[in-house]
Amino acid sequence: MSENVSIVGAGHSKFGKRKGLGLRDLAFEAVADLMKDFKKDLGDVDASVIGVAGDEFSGQGAPAAVLMDEIGMAGKPTLRVESACATGTAAIKSAYSWIKAGLYDSVMVLGVEKMTSVSSARATELMARAGDVRWEAPYGVSFPGYYALLASAHMKAYGTTREMLSSVGVKNHHYGAKNPLAHIQKEVSLEEAMNAVPIAHPLNLYDCSLISDGAAAVVLTKESLAKEYTDDPITIKGIGSGSDTMQMAARSTLTSLSGAKTAARKAYEMAGVTAADVDIAEVHDCFTIAEIIATEDLGFFEPGQGGPAAADQQTYVGGKVAVNVDGGLKSKGHPLGATGVSQAAELRKQLLGEAGPRQVDGADLALSHNVGQTGQFVNVVLYERGN
Amino acid sequence: MSENVSIVGAGHSKFGKRKGLGLRDLAFEAVADLMKDFKKDLGDVDASVIGVAGDEFSGQGAPAAVLMDEIGMAGKPTLRVESACATGTAAIKSAYSWIKAGLYDSVMVLGVEKMTSVSSARATELMARAGDVRWEAPYGVSFPGYYALLASAHMKAYGTTREMLSSVGVKNHHYGAKNPLAHIQKEVSLEEAMNAVPIAHPLNLYDCSLISDGAAAVVLTKESLAKEYTDDPITIKGIGSGSDTMQMAARSTLTSLSGAKTAARKAYEMAGVTAADVDIAEVHDCFTIAEIIATEDLGFFEPGQGGPAAADQQTYVGGKVAVNVDGGLKSKGHPLGATGVSQAAELRKQLLGEAGPRQVDGADLALSHNVGQTGQFVNVVLYERGN
Repeated sequence: MSENVSIVGAGHSKFGKRKGLGLRDLAFEAVADLMKDFKKDLGDVDASVIGVAGDEFSGQGAPAAVLMDEIGMAGKPTLRVESACATGTAAIKSAYSWIKAGLYDSVMVLGVEKMTSVSSARATELMARAGDVRWEAPYGVSFPGYYALLASAHMKAYGTTREMLSSVGVKNHHYGAKNPLAHIQKEVSLEEAMNAVPIAHPLNLYDCSLISDGAAAVVLTKESLAKEYTDDPITIKGIGSGSDTMQMAARSTLTSLSGAKTAARKAYEMAGVTAADVDIAEVHDCFTIAEIIATEDLGFFEPGQGGPAAADQQTYVGGKVAVNVDGGLKSKGHPLGATGVSQAAELRKQLLGEAGPRQVDGADLALSHNVGQTGQFVNVVLYERGN
Repeated sequence: MSENVSIVGAGHSKFGKRKGLGLRDLAFEAVADLMKDFKKDLGDVDASVIGVAGDEFSGQGAPAAVLMDEIGMAGKPTLRVESACATGTAAIKSAYSWIKAGLYDSVMVLGVEKMTSVSSARATELMARAGDVRWEAPYGVSFPGYYALLASAHMKAYGTTREMLSSVGVKNHHYGAKNPLAHIQKEVSLEEAMNAVPIAHPLNLYDCSLISDGAAAVVLTKESLAKEYTDDPITIKGIGSGSDTMQMAARSTLTSLSGAKTAARKAYEMAGVTAADVDIAEVHDCFTIAEIIATEDLGFFEPGQGGPAAADQQTYVGGKVAVNVDGGLKSKGHPLGATGVSQAAELRKQLLGEAGPRQVDGADLALSHNVGQTGQFVNVVLYERGN
C-alpha cells in the first residue's frame, strides 16, 4: 500500500505530579481530550498500540490490556511496545506499520507513564535499569551520569560552555511557562540556570528533565479515510530509526548519537526533504546537552554549532528553527511512554495553527526526535500539514 | 506492498531451568542455532524486534537494546514488544508489519524469557500482575485461578471431565519426551495426571504449564528475497488478532475466548483457508483447559467437543489435527516471551519435514495460536510450506 498515513486526532493530559491519579486515569484524560473534536466513535477505531516504558512505576504488568479497556476499546486488538524513553514514537511507528501493512484502517496510539508514585531516587534507579544491568548499573552510572559524559566530551571537542547548556534550559522554561499542560510553568533566568545545584558534573538541576506523570494519544488512519475522522488531518511524511552499541565505551564518538543521524537521514529520505525544510522540531531534551547534540545530529546546525546557536536564540520562535517551544522534556515534563506521543500532539497543534502564544507562523513541516537510553533507540518522524 | 513475508531462518534454545544462564545467554543460544543454516550474515538483517514479557524476572529494563547488542545486531533499529504470554507472536506481527510497510527488507524476531532466577512463588506473583492489579490481583487471583474458572464453566456447560483435561497433559508429555529441546522430557500416565496435587480446583499440577527459561528466534524477509537467505523458506499466509474485556466478570461466556475466535477468523480470511485445511497446530496450552478451548475456538472441533476429541486422541499425530506435538507449554515449557516464536520455529520444522519422531506427514498448512492473559491478547498466525 503506497497510501500515506494521517494523524486524525490528538489528546494530551496535564503533565506533572498528578497525585491520586494512576496510569488508567491519565490515559482516560488524554483520550477524553482527543474525543473533543473527533468526528467518529472509539468503536470506529480498529486497534490500539500502547506505549508504557516501565511496569515497575505502576506495578501493573502487561499494561496494554488494562488501558485499552479503560479507554473504551475492550475487545479490539492491542499491543504494548517499549523502547525506553523513545517508547512513544515506537508506538506511533508500530501503528503506522500496521496500517501500511493493511492490517487495520485506523489505530489508537496511547503513550502513558505514572512515575511519581515512587520516590525520585527509586524512579532514577528504575530508569537506570534501562542501562546495562550487568556491566554498567552496578557501578552506579544512571542517566544523568551517561549524559554528563556526553556533555564533557562535547565541551572538550567544541568548546561548548556552561552558558550554552543553560540557554537551553532557559528557553524551555520560557516556553513551558506558556504551555498550560506543562509540568513546571515558570520562567528561569540564565543566572539561576547556571548556578543551580549540581547533579552530575557538568550537569546541574536545570540541565535535567523532569520526572512526571502524563499521557498523550493520537489516532492514525489511512490517508484516504482521514476526512471521515477530522476536518484537519496531518500526514506522516517520513519515519526513520537508528540505534547504537549498548555500551558507550564501544562508540567512536561521544559528541553525537549515530542512531539519531541515521534516523534523521532515513526520515528525510522517505519524505524527500532536508533539514532546512523543517519549520519546527520537538527534540529529546532529556538533558540540555541532548538538545544541543540533537540539533546537530538532525542537521539544523553544524557539529559544534548547536551550543552557540542555543545561546544565540536560534532555536526560539522566529529563529532558524523553533525547538521545543512547548517546554520540552525539561519544562513540559517527561512521562517516559508519553513523550513521543506528546511530541506528535504538540506538532499537530503547531501545524494546525492552534499553538497560541507558542505558535510558529506558517509551520508546514514538523519533526519529532525521540531517544531511548543513550541512543540505542532513536525515532525521527516528520509530519506535514494537510493530506 | 502486496508481496508476502517469509520465514527464512529459525533457532531455538533448550527450554528448562537453565542455571547460570541469563537473558542474553539464552538469546545468543537461539540466534547461534538459527545461524547454522542461514545463508547470510546478521549484518544483512535490517532490524530486530525483541519479545520479552517481564522486566522483573531479569531486572533488565528496556531489554531490547542489551539483547540486540548481545546477538550481534548493535546499531540496527530495534523494538521491544510485550503482550503478556502472547509476546512472541506480537513480535512476529510487528516484524511482519514493518516489512509489509516497506520500512525494512528483513527483520530478526527474538523471543526470550529468564524466569527461574526468581522463586516459583515470585514468578507466579509477577505473572499475576498481568491481571488487573487494582480489581483482581489484590484479591488473590493468579493465573491458575483464572483458568480454573474457565475449566469449571466448560465442565458445567459441556460435561467436560477430569479425564479429558488429563488427556491433554498425557499427550503433551508424550510428545515432549520426543523433543530434545523440551523442559521436561518424560511420559506421564493418565493415572498420574488425574491424581496429581491440586493447584486451583479443578486444575492440578499436570494441568499447568511450566515456568521455564528459553529463547527462540526467526528471521522474516520479503518473499522475493527469501531464497537469498535460505533454500527452504516458509510463508506467512495469515495473521489475525483478537482481544477481550479486561475483567472476566464482564464477559458473556467463560467457555470460549472471543478474541481467539476473532483472531482465527481474521487469519483464515487473510489466508483464504478454513480450519479443515490446517494440518498441524501449536496452541497456547498454558493450562490443559486452554488447549481444549483453543481447539474449539479455532474451529477444529465444535463447542464442547474439544474434551472428547482430546480423550479420543484426535489431536495426536495421525488424528484429525495434530496439536502441540512438540510438548506444548505443558511439557516443552513456557518462557513467556519465547513461546510464540518457539511455535513458529517448531511449525517451520514440521513444514520442512524436519520434526523427526514428531513429524506430521505432508504437513502443508500450520497454525500458531498464542494467548496473553485470559484472552486480552490473542494472535493466530498461519504458515505454509514454500513461497
